Amino acid sequence: MIRTLGITHQHQVEADVPLDQLDNPKYAWVWTDFNEPTKEESALLDTLFHFHPLAIEDCLHVLQRPKMDYYEDMEFMVVHSLEADTLDTTEVDLFIGRRFLVTYHHKDLVEVNNAWNKVMQRAHDRKIWARGPMAAAYLVIDELVDLYFPCVFAIEDELDELENRGGHESVEDLMNQVFDLRSRLLKLRRTIVPMRDLMYRVVNSEHIQGEHEPRAYFTDIYDHLLKLTDMIEADREMTADLRDSYISLNSNRMNSIMKTLTVITTIFMPLTLIAGIYGMNFINMPELHTQYGYFVVLGVMLALSVWMILWFQRRGWFK
Amino acid sequence: MIRTLGITHQHQVEADVPLDQLDNPKYAWVWTDFNEPTKEESALLDTLFHFHPLAIEDCLHVLQRPKMDYYEDMEFMVVHSLEADTLDTTEVDLFIGRRFLVTYHHKDLVEVNNAWNKVMQRAHDRKIWARGPMAAAYLVIDELVDLYFPCVFAIEDELDELENRGGHESVEDLMNQVFDLRSRLLKLRRTIVPMRDLMYRVVNSEHIQGEHEPRAYFTDIYDHLLKLTDMIEADREMTADLRDSYISLNSNRMNSIMKTLTVITTIFMPLTLIAGIYGMNFINMPELHTQYGYFVVLGVMLALSVWMILWFQRRGWFK
Amino acid sequence: MIRTLGITHQHQVEADVPLDQLDNPKYAWVWTDFNEPTKEESALLDTLFHFHPLAIEDCLHVLQRPKMDYYEDMEFMVVHSLEADTLDTTEVDLFIGRRFLVTYHHKDLVEVNNAWNKVMQRAHDRKIWARGPMAAAYLVIDELVDLYFPCVFAIEDELDELENRGGHESVEDLMNQVFDLRSRLLKLRRTIVPMRDLMYRVVNSEHIQGEHEPRAYFTDIYDHLLKLTDMIEADREMTADLRDSYISLNSNRMNSIMKTLTVITTIFMPLTLIAGIYGMNFINMPELHTQYGYFVVLGVMLALSVWMILWFQRRGWFK
Amino acid sequence: MIRTLGITHQHQVEADVPLDQLDNPKYAWVWTDFNEPTKEESALLDTLFHFHPLAIEDCLHVLQRPKMDYYEDMEFMVVHSLEADTLDTTEVDLFIGRRFLVTYHHKDLVEVNNAWNKVMQRAHDRKIWARGPMAAAYLVIDELVDLYFPCVFAIEDELDELENRGGHESVEDLMNQVFDLRSRLLKLRRTIVPMRDLMYRVVNSEHIQGEHEPRAYFTDIYDHLLKLTDMIEADREMTADLRDSYISLNSNRMNSIMKTLTVITTIFMPLTLIAGIYGMNFINMPELHTQYGYFVVLGVMLALSVWMILWFQRRGWFK
Amino acid sequence: MIRTLGITHQHQVEADVPLDQLDNPKYAWVWTDFNEPTKEESALLDTLFHFHPLAIEDCLHVLQRPKMDYYEDMEFMVVHSLEADTLDTTEVDLFIGRRFLVTYHHKDLVEVNNAWNKVMQRAHDRKIWARGPMAAAYLVIDELVDLYFPCVFAIEDELDELENRGGHESVEDLMNQVFDLRSRLLKLRRTIVPMRDLMYRVVNSEHIQGEHEPRAYFTDIYDHLLKLTDMIEADREMTADLRDSYISLNSNRMNSIMKTLTVITTIFMPLTLIAGIYGMNFINMPELHTQYGYFVVLGVMLALSVWMILWFQRRGWFK
Repeated sequence: MIRTLGITHQHQVEADVPLDQLDNPKYAWVWTDFNEPTKEESALLDTLFHFHPLAIEDCLHVLQRPKMDYYEDMEFMVVHSLEADTLDTTEVDLFIGRRFLVTYHHKDLVEVNNAWNKVMQRAHDRKIWARGPMAAAYLVIDELVDLYFPCVFAIEDELDELENRGGHESVEDLMNQVFDLRSRLLKLRRTIVPMRDLMYRVVNSEHIQGEHEPRAYFTDIYDHLLKLTDMIEADREMTADLRDSYISLNSNRMNSIMKTLTVITTIFMPLTLIAGIYGMNFINMPELHTQYGYFVVLGVMLALSVWMILWFQRRGWFK
Repeated sequence: MIRTLGITHQHQVEADVPLDQLDNPKYAWVWTDFNEPTKEESALLDTLFHFHPLAIEDCLHVLQRPKMDYYEDMEFMVVHSLEADTLDTTEVDLFIGRRFLVTYHHKDLVEVNNAWNKVMQRAHDRKIWARGPMAAAYLVIDELVDLYFPCVFAIEDELDELENRGGHESVEDLMNQVFDLRSRLLKLRRTIVPMRDLMYRVVNSEHIQGEHEPRAYFTDIYDHLLKLTDMIEADREMTADLRDSYISLNSNRMNSIMKTLTVITTIFMPLTLIAGIYGMNFINMPELHTQYGYFVVLGVMLALSVWMILWFQRRGWFK
Repeated sequence: MIRTLGITHQHQVEADVPLDQLDNPKYAWVWTDFNEPTKEESALLDTLFHFHPLAIEDCLHVLQRPKMDYYEDMEFMVVHSLEADTLDTTEVDLFIGRRFLVTYHHKDLVEVNNAWNKVMQRAHDRKIWARGPMAAAYLVIDELVDLYFPCVFAIEDELDELENRGGHESVEDLMNQVFDLRSRLLKLRRTIVPMRDLMYRVVNSEHIQGEHEPRAYFTDIYDHLLKLTDMIEADREMTADLRDSYISLNSNRMNSIMKTLTVITTIFMPLTLIAGIYGMNFINMPELHTQYGYFVVLGVMLALSVWMILWFQRRGWFK
Repeated sequence: MIRTLGITHQHQVEADVPLDQLDNPKYAWVWTDFNEPTKEESALLDTLFHFHPLAIEDCLHVLQRPKMDYYEDMEFMVVHSLEADTLDTTEVDLFIGRRFLVTYHHKDLVEVNNAWNKVMQRAHDRKIWARGPMAAAYLVIDELVDLYFPCVFAIEDELDELENRGGHESVEDLMNQVFDLRSRLLKLRRTIVPMRDLMYRVVNSEHIQGEHEPRAYFTDIYDHLLKLTDMIEADREMTADLRDSYISLNSNRMNSIMKTLTVITTIFMPLTLIAGIYGMNFINMPELHTQYGYFVVLGVMLALSVWMILWFQRRGWFK
Repeated sequence: MIRTLGITHQHQVEADVPLDQLDNPKYAWVWTDFNEPTKEESALLDTLFHFHPLAIEDCLHVLQRPKMDYYEDMEFMVVHSLEADTLDTTEVDLFIGRRFLVTYHHKDLVEVNNAWNKVMQRAHDRKIWARGPMAAAYLVIDELVDLYFPCVFAIEDELDELENRGGHESVEDLMNQVFDLRSRLLKLRRTIVPMRDLMYRVVNSEHIQGEHEPRAYFTDIYDHLLKLTDMIEADREMTADLRDSYISLNSNRMNSIMKTLTVITTIFMPLTLIAGIYGMNFINMPELHTQYGYFVVLGVMLALSVWMILWFQRRGWFK
């Protein structure tokens, strides 16, 4: 589907500009949105707009890093939308010229629709939309980046919960959750860091076309992305700490379990041996026939176990 | 609450300048402090001061990184105050122009009050306050950063104590404490590093407005933040070392516990088996009927255990 | 084998230009491909082309990093082809002048053949090949880098499978697989990172010869290599996470195994001792002769084990 | 204590210049050393020398990073002396102008004394001291940095010894030593890295006052600090390797201990059970009454243990 | 020993130029080699060549980082030779002027001899030696760096062997070997990285004296050092992976050993208790006197062990 929108020099918005009227000088600029375009529609990028073949190729093949290329009469940007559930990315391609903005994306995106509606509705208010296509491109990218935040916040919430839970759950589940959090953070970083690098280049670029202060707006997006990458890095370290802390606690608990086992074994094995010895059936075992042999042996057993307990205590095993 | 303070060209301080007198040319500059402002008061940023909408938006939404934006006639800074107990941050927004300073914060902050009082009291002494709003902004930020130090010192003290304690406490508590220290350091770093980056940009910026050498003052703050980040990084490494050291000690102690268990088991199991064998009730067990069978078996048991102890000793298990 | 190809000023392609006609002014430029050259053929680099001795030396000795050297009248580039199975690299050397392209490689490479065929077939279409040797060099390098992707994708696929499998396999195999993945990633990185650095220098170099916009093409390759290194770094971290996660899960499972062992031992050892005591053959053991001694002892054993189970439960061992 | 020293234009050295003669034009420059100054003496920095209040504040408060500030007519440097035993630092403040050098330190430092004596004694020899205060400042800093080396060498020696010892000592002591080495390296790095950064800025600064080639001298100090940081980083990695190596060896030894325990338990438990069964007192146990039952049971026990040993051997447990 | 070699303006090589003829204008330039110089010979650096005292000091004291200093009329370079067996370094100092090259080293080095002989033999061939002392300095450094390669290759070979061996050796030896490889890599890095940094500065320096294209030659050395550092870093990561992989495998094997132990103990302990109970000597134990009590007990034992084995199997312990 292709939809168009034209801003006249009087700051009026006209929807559904016919495709052969895009150059009509009555429009200050025109926004053409390729939403889930068919193959035939995609061909228009070449036949109608005459964009550079490299840029068109970048649209059709989806494995792209966010990037910005400068062509003679336009900028070409690839940015990424993030899906909240799966953290999968959708590519949005922007062709930004003096008098046109072309957006191209293979999925219907709520962020592009939001930006589209804002341009449709608010055009008269602040005259920002009169500032040309770069302001609209800013709107699209701002909407995209705003939807990154809930993804990171969701992870931070889970992480906070994890920290505070304190062992009311099986460690196995916990470790799986930490691993899951970490791989989601990795996935997020893979999307957000290239976006941040792109915005840095946009802010510091000298090519940006547009009439008024677009730099301040893109700086705002860049600050948001910086904040996001800070959060992601901190969360990665937090989860690593959490995992290392569990490992060291585990190794410590293991020690205390092993101590219990060793103490029990060390105390009872000798006693069992003594009982076993006097259970032997030799004919000539003088102790067996004494009056108080049994009680002496019980006493020896008691003394032995007390002595061993004291010995363990002195070596600090019960701490 | 909004409070104001005007410095006249004669370096007099006048408190409570009426809001409609802020432009009065008798003042060299005016400081307006929005302290826990209501929604109506916040609206003044737009209606009275006519600040840029992006800057106002940054005030109202609190999720900000420390940052500095340049507008035509003013600088806009976002800095963070740190609460000593929770290590939570409070945002302070500063609008710094030639003839005005506006500070805006959602909580009542002791640091801003201190700066305010210093301007109120010392204005006649050194004439630094005659140097314009940037000197007052410096004061506010200096007070904020000075309160970062106790937070880091508290952690360093706990860390020193932890190092010197040497095992008089349960390892579980210890590991929890290390984890707690590390996550507090992470939290601190998340506040202090962006502040440091901001101060670096302030010091190297060419936009700074003001009459005399503000750079030297901000360099001083920057040096403090550099010192703080050095300390935080070193403490993070220290705690990691502490944890890794515990893990390796633990694994070593485990070894020695396991050796004890194995030695005990290895010595007593065969003896118990021997005792068990001669406790069997077979009719035809010739050894049972010999005169000294019992004593021979005891002797064999003794010899066996001595031999096993020697064998373990030769393999170095008792080291 | 040496093969040649000449592009005339009329954008015609002529195959098999004789070696003594390479300078013929009717050709806009000539591509000479040294494919698995013999020693005699390699000597032509010096005797026919008079290349710089350092560049020739770099061709003959294969231990090279991807690199680019500038000589008076040409660029010399070393790039690497990657074999999909072994991840071994083959060096391709390119001498790029105003009117010639010389490619030199010790193995027959499908990538060079592809580029060669594209030049042979498509020359009339887009006139890109009229843009001189740099465009053909771009083609060769683009083909090389395109074959890096399947290597990385193969690893990503294995990694995805590994993540989702969830323990239906022996951990030993799993760890070997992780280790294998990591060492392949290391090997890939060793090839791709220097290629990326080279492309960065190519894109930012001011020496590049050629008539039209070669920079945009090389930027495209650079973006691909950036994407690849991002993927490799993320996969390295992913595998490290996977391994650390297994280690922590393992240490946790160990704890639960040890608990089982300790509980069993702690419950049965005292009971076995009691049975052993009453199996002793002392003459004077009053309990043996009571009517209900046996049942009392069984009751004591039962009570003891119940009490111990409760004690373990209270200490949280069964969680 | 304050001591002074004046260099005349004839390159004579005069000790004990009266404080009111510091400006006497007969001196090319004057060195004033504040050694453990009293509060009254410290006040002279303001009343006599009229230094900038920020610089004076930096002297009085000791929590400083090494740094360099430029004031109108002087440089202000903070450098750190290192105490060999405790690795504690002492701050030395240097005020360096065209015609004066002021050094300020709260402790009596052998390094400053050495520099002082060198100026006193060698002034006539090489005329280096005629080059002004920067050459003397170089001397002081050079002496300070020279005393860093023994601290690092001491650690390297301990580390070498540790590596070569090879287990003639308890692992617990060893791990404590590694931890101690690491925390000392951390402490050293915290002093040396900021000093290195400072020297880098000094070498690359364009403000340095002085008449002849001071840059070459400071480059020399910078190279020493670079060497030191290289050594510290390498030692940190070395100790980490040492610790990781011990952990992996430990986990391996644990395995072999556990194997021993498991083999012993697995062999003797079934045998003990058999002995126990034939020790039961049932009336009707036919085996007990056979002629060779006892010997058959002994044979079965022997066969069982041989079989189990072979089974363990086949599974590679004795490797 | 001091040896000299002069290149005339006619590109003739004259050996053994007398020390008082070094300035003779008939030589284009002269190479003086201090090979294991005595104290008296070293003094010539000052008395004959009048080098800068800082440079001479750097020769006499051996603890140097590779470095390059610029003096008025010469460059001073410190480079390091690597001994293949011990990986110890020997310092080579080069003084490079317009008309002289002075090399100074405390050990007889095969690399310097090789360079010396190349200059002696090949001078007529390519006229490269007519290009002045910088070309000879290049030769010396190239020979030095070429001898770094065998050291790194030796480590790579050992590492390859280690990877492929797969457990035919004791893990203890293996870990020691990994540790040894890592510390040798560390040692190599400590030599090679500063050399690389030095070459980077040489290549990018604007001071280099010489007549023709020395930069291309040093770029070649720089590329080799870059390759070497890449290899060292990759090998460090490889060994770390190897060690971590062993640790995780070890922890996994430990689990399976512990499972064996626990299964054995859990099965046999209850059976042993039952046997013990019926081995007690109470008078009134009704079961003992039943006809089939013994067989019932054996049946119960069998049933119990089958049930426990099934229970372990259901919990997945035998996987």
